[in-house]
Amino acid sequence: MVVLETIRSSADVKKLNIEQLELLTKEIRQEILRVVSANGGHLASNLGVVELTIALHAFLDLPKDEIVWDVGHQCYAHKLLSGRQAEFATLRQSGGLSGFPKPYESPADAYVAGHSSTSISVAAGIAEAARRQHIDKRVYAVIGDGALSGGMVWEAMNHAGDLETPFTVILNDNEMSIAANVGSMSRYLTRLRTDKRYRRLKDRITHFMLGRKKLGRAFYHGLERLRDAVKYFLVRGVVFEEMGFVYLGPVDGHDIGELLRTLQMAAQINKPVLLHVITQKGRGYAPAEQDPTTFHGVGSFDLATGQTGPKKRGYTDIFAEKLVELAAADEKIVALTAAMPHGTGLEAFRQRFPERFYDVGIAEPHMVTFGAALASRGLCPVAAVYSTFLQRAYDQLLQDVCLAEAPLVLAVDRAGIVGEDGETHQGLFDIAMLRAMPNMTLLAPRDAAALPPMLEYALKLRRPVALRYPRGAAAELPNFPPKALTQGKGEILLEPAEAKLGILALGDMVAEALRLAELLTAAGVPAAVADLRFAKPLDEALIFDFAEKYGRLLTLEDGVKAGGVGEGVAALLQAAGSRAEVEIAAFPDEFVAQGKPAEIFAKYHLTAAELLPLVRRRWFEE
Amino acid sequence: MVVLETIRSSADVKKLNIEQLELLTKEIRQEILRVVSANGGHLASNLGVVELTIALHAFLDLPKDEIVWDVGHQCYAHKLLSGRQAEFATLRQSGGLSGFPKPYESPADAYVAGHSSTSISVAAGIAEAARRQHIDKRVYAVIGDGALSGGMVWEAMNHAGDLETPFTVILNDNEMSIAANVGSMSRYLTRLRTDKRYRRLKDRITHFMLGRKKLGRAFYHGLERLRDAVKYFLVRGVVFEEMGFVYLGPVDGHDIGELLRTLQMAAQINKPVLLHVITQKGRGYAPAEQDPTTFHGVGSFDLATGQTGPKKRGYTDIFAEKLVELAAADEKIVALTAAMPHGTGLEAFRQRFPERFYDVGIAEPHMVTFGAALASRGLCPVAAVYSTFLQRAYDQLLQDVCLAEAPLVLAVDRAGIVGEDGETHQGLFDIAMLRAMPNMTLLAPRDAAALPPMLEYALKLRRPVALRYPRGAAAELPNFPPKALTQGKGEILLEPAEAKLGILALGDMVAEALRLAELLTAAGVPAAVADLRFAKPLDEALIFDFAEKYGRLLTLEDGVKAGGVGEGVAALLQAAGSRAEVEIAAFPDEFVAQGKPAEIFAKYHLTAAELLPLVRRRWFEE
Repeated sequence: MVVLETIRSSADVKKLNIEQLELLTKEIRQEILRVVSANGGHLASNLGVVELTIALHAFLDLPKDEIVWDVGHQCYAHKLLSGRQAEFATLRQSGGLSGFPKPYESPADAYVAGHSSTSISVAAGIAEAARRQHIDKRVYAVIGDGALSGGMVWEAMNHAGDLETPFTVILNDNEMSIAANVGSMSRYLTRLRTDKRYRRLKDRITHFMLGRKKLGRAFYHGLERLRDAVKYFLVRGVVFEEMGFVYLGPVDGHDIGELLRTLQMAAQINKPVLLHVITQKGRGYAPAEQDPTTFHGVGSFDLATGQTGPKKRGYTDIFAEKLVELAAADEKIVALTAAMPHGTGLEAFRQRFPERFYDVGIAEPHMVTFGAALASRGLCPVAAVYSTFLQRAYDQLLQDVCLAEAPLVLAVDRAGIVGEDGETHQGLFDIAMLRAMPNMTLLAPRDAAALPPMLEYALKLRRPVALRYPRGAAAELPNFPPKALTQGKGEILLEPAEAKLGILALGDMVAEALRLAELLTAAGVPAAVADLRFAKPLDEALIFDFAEKYGRLLTLEDGVKAGGVGEGVAALLQAAGSRAEVEIAAFPDEFVAQGKPAEIFAKYHLTAAELLPLVRRRWFEE
Repeated sequence: MVVLETIRSSADVKKLNIEQLELLTKEIRQEILRVVSANGGHLASNLGVVELTIALHAFLDLPKDEIVWDVGHQCYAHKLLSGRQAEFATLRQSGGLSGFPKPYESPADAYVAGHSSTSISVAAGIAEAARRQHIDKRVYAVIGDGALSGGMVWEAMNHAGDLETPFTVILNDNEMSIAANVGSMSRYLTRLRTDKRYRRLKDRITHFMLGRKKLGRAFYHGLERLRDAVKYFLVRGVVFEEMGFVYLGPVDGHDIGELLRTLQMAAQINKPVLLHVITQKGRGYAPAEQDPTTFHGVGSFDLATGQTGPKKRGYTDIFAEKLVELAAADEKIVALTAAMPHGTGLEAFRQRFPERFYDVGIAEPHMVTFGAALASRGLCPVAAVYSTFLQRAYDQLLQDVCLAEAPLVLAVDRAGIVGEDGETHQGLFDIAMLRAMPNMTLLAPRDAAALPPMLEYALKLRRPVALRYPRGAAAELPNFPPKALTQGKGEILLEPAEAKLGILALGDMVAEALRLAELLTAAGVPAAVADLRFAKPLDEALIFDFAEKYGRLLTLEDGVKAGGVGEGVAALLQAAGSRAEVEIAAFPDEFVAQGKPAEIFAKYHLTAAELLPLVRRRWFEE
């Protein structure tokens, strides 16, 4: 790391000659590979933007100038170049460097990011604030081609193109988002990248014109008008041009010299610029170049072979398998994803039923409304989406699904704690979101065996329904095989004769509730345990029954407290004038930072071991 | 109404000759004017689409074929032609016809609508479901040019253009959304509408080509290639073409014959089609033609003069005046709207400070993130938005405002009950939405006098903050002048010595709480009343104080119960082991239909008169 270790800030990058820059690209890739192979993280996208990041650091004056990384998971090289080499090995660890831009880490991180397609809005805002306050500053959004399918990009371009405040959007075109790109915009980019016909035609016209000057004034002028028209047509990126951006490119994103020259050109244009840069995902690491989808986000892997560890069978797999099984028997079942065929497990469905699979791009609002329309016209669509990204479609869920009573099934993956991706990705809000929506049914399986019947039930319900389950390995509770589902009915799992407390738990927290009951029994305080199964509608009869029998209720859920199931239970008992006491165990009113899920649950007192003293202190100590 | 009264369904429209159709347009306009001038409603947009609606009914086989009206407030002519003439006079009344498409009213209403930019997603879904099930059906989305600024349109076009399932998007281009249109897309449409240069150039080329056939094969072929290139360039709507749609138009939207011919052409194209139709807002009624913004949505007005009633001074005006006053003293204050300069009152700000005013188009997600970026870089932006439309930006609020801790001030107008616009527009979810978001502060003024200091406070806080207030005339509580604000602190308004109950109310419900306290006192049960002022953070000290002193609490808010303030209070007391009883008065788990606000509050037992027996029954009767 002879070059990398001399870099304290972007000022040091500027001092390097071209050979040193070349060496720097190698060292950065090496360091990224070393740390990601150990810690897991986003690999392919980070390997793809090494030269682009170096060029930006060499060209800009950071942090006075600002780079807004869209989604943000491609910021590793940027972190290495902006004074965070020493901490880089702590990437994605509890208390360590975030895998996403975090302004609290460094002033070089312009804005929090984590969800797609926000960078143009942010960069336009930063540039406009600078213009208004007469601050001299260059502002860059770096956005992948996949993120162009997100509607916010168009809202931002429509506004920024009209506003005309100069800033640069760097379209980092690696020909895919996480999986292969979809949509007509992606086809359009392909034409921009590859259509040589335009270039040839342009050359011919120029040649033709040069030889015809003698043909007379009127004829020549006619041809000149033609040439202008054709030239305008030949301007690549006409879609971006029509949105008010000057289009530059495409440029080889692995050629630092060409990048610097084009950045220089862009900086001289006093308008919004879209600079189209072609990069290769996984660049410089053969396994990632060959399989960028697997190496988009990975756990630890063997650096020499590129061998990733065996994936544990989780809820995602169980969901995917059951969906394929159900779909084999019912051709009305179709599946939807917003650019996450692998993460949601739907890739298996796509391979089996390619004609019944819709990848709409990074476009959750459209996915939800399109899915609702399919559902309302006789199909049985299942939209699989991460909890955190479902937040993008709040209004569409409320209006186009719940108000329209469209029988769309939402498979809400990564609900609860996701761990290493941190604040932006925790799935802690879906319960509060969906509980407030009339006509919604919200289910959560307590273990691996409970998921398949819930999915089957959700599809049969013909109502708006969401099924939430967490990331990672599924709980297994073989002593409690799932019973048949009835709308809004929970299931009592333990009811010891002298129970002094009733525990109402949801989803994965049921296993924790059972462990807690064991600990309590050992401590001489037997507890009853029920699996609520439905976060909405709540099982009022069960709740009143427990309240009356035990007088003390503990609710347990892996979501935020405000608007969660616990508040619902407390309010229900209050409305009925019950004197039962309720302890609500849920996540408090703060963003939950990265870390291992087990550590996070312990930190927030949501494990049996942490809940035991809490329960004893409140009710069973003198 | 000699023609209109013969129309029972679209079959009857097909029988009319051209003179009868002309008469029908007149009669429909007359009927719309008669009912809207009496009931209020959306006028200008409905007058603009009369011929288009007739043409669609004449061409299509409804309800087998389907029309998806974007936003939906332009569906009046459609309702008149699809068997709802008899009920049309009940438009927007309690129990009457909705001003928006409602499938429960008629199978001719394909989908619920109310919020902008969803129609292409819905129509694509309906068309795809039909294709998959081999149902022969033509599907049309009718979308205004203003709605193109909404990102969902691009998500839907990106997907649908790639999917290639045939359906038709009718771009109803009236050159404005609600106010004048903004954004680069609007400029682009203007070019499509007006640029005659293209047409002239096209004619010249054709003429030139026709005279040059003798010039030799190679030369001619070269020219042919040129012509193809130019022709392609001359294809209007290249942006839509690049998104995978065949572009047709522009067509005069008031010429039924031309519309029918073009609909016929569109129906023969086996791909997604975008048909660009030019209409005039307010067509056929001079006052609305001249001032379509005022006549976008109106209360009752004088049909002869176009004189609208005097507008009552409401929270909107008070907010707008105070903002202008504060902005005069602080040039860091800027204002944002998503296409609602008039509805939010910001028009006054725009006129005074045009350089500090941003209308981003119908694009709430971008507005929130752009505003957050401005806020994070030293400006003091205030984004004014209706509660129901803020739902569009849930994720951006959570991530780009709250997680980023951007000091964006949200002025949440139309919070609570909006009345005649019905289910899609009630502002009942913002409290639940915003309470779940860490770092958010949510304020509500109890009356006219309380709003200005709250706005000033919100701007000084330099934290994410929302200020919610309802539609219509502001309450006036001159006996309770607002006291200085302290973060998270409510204000006790009444505390009679023998109070037996504490009422905790928010915003406009404070006036109701005071009325209830009067009624209770008259009934021998004195009650204390506090204005919570902050829906988040809750004033825990005040809540515990009331709980301890009175043992009985009534919470009162104009939002949904699930996730609302009442649940928060109940949960807080439960967590503290308080034995106080809480009665939560809020809206239940259902969508709230149209009606006069007073009727709606009474229906849901949220008036003093309705709450009195409820409180007495629970606590003060033997």
